[in-house]
Amino acid sequence: MTIHGYLFRSHLREMSREECLERLNVEVVGRVGFNDDLGPVVLPVNYRIREGSVIIATGLSTALARFAIGKAVALEVEDVDPLTESGWSVLVRGRAEIVPHDGMPEPGGRPRPWADGPRPLLIQIVPETVTGRWLIEA
Amino acid sequence: MTIHGYLFRSHLREMSREECLERLNVEVVGRVGFNDDLGPVVLPVNYRIREGSVIIATGLSTALARFAIGKAVALEVEDVDPLTESGWSVLVRGRAEIVPHDGMPEPGGRPRPWADGPRPLLIQIVPETVTGRWLIEA
Repeated sequence: MTIHGYLFRSHLREMSREECLERLNVEVVGRVGFNDDLGPVVLPVNYRIREGSVIIATGLSTALARFAIGKAVALEVEDVDPLTESGWSVLVRGRAEIVPHDGMPEPGGRPRPWADGPRPLLIQIVPETVTGRWLIEA
Repeated sequence: MTIHGYLFRSHLREMSREECLERLNVEVVGRVGFNDDLGPVVLPVNYRIREGSVIIATGLSTALARFAIGKAVALEVEDVDPLTESGWSVLVRGRAEIVPHDGMPEPGGRPRPWADGPRPLLIQIVPETVTGRWLIEA
């Protein structure tokens, strides 16, 4: 425990749903949580919000494509500052589904993955719950 | 797709186990993935590496304490730069267990949570797999 820790000890406050959605709309990178045969996996992904759903582009043979479709998944988005030890995090939970052909977003409405490689499969998460917390400097 | 996207398109490279462990030892905040009754949950946590295991301090009635003990969990640690769209991520997978009384680390060896509130329960994840990826500017 350092003096710094005492000075900046932060506390948690629940975010409103509106605050959560506002944060989700601004960010472009999060972490998707799903289960493979061995249990939970957490991986960074680029995402985009379209009509209230999370859209993620992935390859046809990724772990996400193989294990998450039709299952409960989570997307976590956050911004924390190690200097002030404060920030926020938002968690979207819902079922992962393949975006149907007649529901394909325009190219401008799709996530733009930072990593190269083909990602022809669009997955959507229709939120069942959206929760978040502020970690505020005390 | 912006010109910026074309200029900085990055590619993925697997990290060695040594690179993963080095990153894990340096960082102090990650995201723990576990399952509650509804499926995957991903939440930010402060952690510490001790003798090769991930140590997390939590409260007695948190979701982590209630649902993760004895189950498969994951810890994801990352550092990504939105400007260059590059960075890295590491994933530790293993079973969450309560740290036994005779294995309690000295106070200096425990995680230092940024948020206030009591966190008397120490959970350890003994890694079964440690994997990571660099997202490198092309």
